[in-house]
Amino acid sequence: MEAGVATATTVFADRLAAAVERKRSQLVVGLDPSLDLLPVELRGDAGESRAGAADACRRFAFGIVDAVAPHAVAVKPQLAFWERLGSDGVRAFEEVCAYSRSVGLLVLVDGKRGDVGSTARAYAEAYLESGIADAMTVNAYMGRESIEPFLSACRRHGTGIFCVVKTSNAGADVQDLKLSDGSLLWQQVARLVAEWGEELVGDRGLSSVCAVVGATHPRAVGEARKLMPQAVLLLPGVGAQGGTPADVARAFTSGPASALVNASRSVIYAYRARGGDFRAAAGAEASRLKREIWAVAGW
Amino acid sequence: MEAGVATATTVFADRLAAAVERKRSQLVVGLDPSLDLLPVELRGDAGESRAGAADACRRFAFGIVDAVAPHAVAVKPQLAFWERLGSDGVRAFEEVCAYSRSVGLLVLVDGKRGDVGSTARAYAEAYLESGIADAMTVNAYMGRESIEPFLSACRRHGTGIFCVVKTSNAGADVQDLKLSDGSLLWQQVARLVAEWGEELVGDRGLSSVCAVVGATHPRAVGEARKLMPQAVLLLPGVGAQGGTPADVARAFTSGPASALVNASRSVIYAYRARGGDFRAAAGAEASRLKREIWAVAGW
Repeated sequence: MEAGVATATTVFADRLAAAVERKRSQLVVGLDPSLDLLPVELRGDAGESRAGAADACRRFAFGIVDAVAPHAVAVKPQLAFWERLGSDGVRAFEEVCAYSRSVGLLVLVDGKRGDVGSTARAYAEAYLESGIADAMTVNAYMGRESIEPFLSACRRHGTGIFCVVKTSNAGADVQDLKLSDGSLLWQQVARLVAEWGEELVGDRGLSSVCAVVGATHPRAVGEARKLMPQAVLLLPGVGAQGGTPADVARAFTSGPASALVNASRSVIYAYRARGGDFRAAAGAEASRLKREIWAVAGW
Repeated sequence: MEAGVATATTVFADRLAAAVERKRSQLVVGLDPSLDLLPVELRGDAGESRAGAADACRRFAFGIVDAVAPHAVAVKPQLAFWERLGSDGVRAFEEVCAYSRSVGLLVLVDGKRGDVGSTARAYAEAYLESGIADAMTVNAYMGRESIEPFLSACRRHGTGIFCVVKTSNAGADVQDLKLSDGSLLWQQVARLVAEWGEELVGDRGLSSVCAVVGATHPRAVGEARKLMPQAVLLLPGVGAQGGTPADVARAFTSGPASALVNASRSVIYAYRARGGDFRAAAGAEASRLKREIWAVAGW
């Protein structure tokens, strides 16, 4: 039933660290296509059907993947943008993931899945055991039991998870709730992530149990680093959401691969600001960001 | 780009209440097919490809839908089980949803989605604005900003959301964290759900902003009812997960449609215990459960 043979059994965190050092890049490019933002030559009359829209988004993403492959260490397709196009969108997503891996990019599937054990197992099979992704984002609201099936997949398939800890949005009414011990909810989730990740630490001292921490909260990035010293931190929010690479410098103190910076709209739609071919613009922006982040990381 | 015209603009909670009273049923049947549990006549050699597996699951789900349509008020396809079969699975899921609606069942898509605003909008488009579902489950860890796009879809399309408050699994290490005011995290999430739902209350006094509360925690069900007096409570965990209909009686004090009981494995795989045709067994078990729940609800 598996679509392809799954990933190498090397620990995800080690594969990631090797790729970061080889490419001298901690850049992750988000693949979140919206039909109305695509170049007109791709958009065409694609808006008339979901199949047409999915095909336009697929061709756009292939172009972006080609353009950023030399500069990014990974791509991060956001499932919501592909699910919006129905099963045609999901098929395009699968093709984009396979293509990305074929050109040497790691694939982090962003779906923030989380559910009770038997359902979490199905999600782990869908993405981590099928060979589609090297890692996926998960939501820990349902606790350790809901994370265990993902950990099991990480052990057996050399894959990783990125647990949502502190997001880049303004919605702090849950994550910033104060607990009876004086810490905030997201800080306690960070402690749990560190604990869950202890058994999945690779040769570089980094764990395959990683965390999502919004780059729009510079102070939280430093705190997250301390609470999860071995976790790879994925930092969204740079670029369109307002964070700067300098805001995230503290994340890199556990090694060159100890943090990844995600940029989505600012890279994939760079042609809208820079003009010219969308691939060339995305490649130039990815190259610029990659160097800027590497310099800030200080390795 | 929409696959079909979306739902009626009647408030979801009112549509649900009308359906509950007409059918005298608060039963929701989960559609979570696993290839290895299907009747052998459907399983065949389907295991050799995802497409074959998806087709077997689709045929199984159609049979279940036919069998439970007279007894259940809604079906709840669990997305993970369809995503596990890739885009073929998602296509089968779409067909199952469309078929369920065509025979008069409400469709609650269970995906527990949650993300920052622009991504949440894409999820709302995918399920609530596309005409696929009448309601979907969401995860509120990212706060009000992540829920707002779903609320907007509910307002415009007469759809609903079920926010995960307290789940049926054992993983209480996050949901049961104690806050500085002495309450538990899930209780605070319940308060937020009540607040978010105030603007979406229908003519029956029930809100389209609903909540998932595990039937395996009878005391929590009563507390949830008090914290969210207008929310429809979706109670998973009856049957295979160990809860009994009597455990959930307190949920129904806000009206006949103020709670829904979900049963998945105990209904769809009833043939494994009862023997005989899987459709007949599922229909009989659904009929039995429906009457048992109606009696417990006391309306």
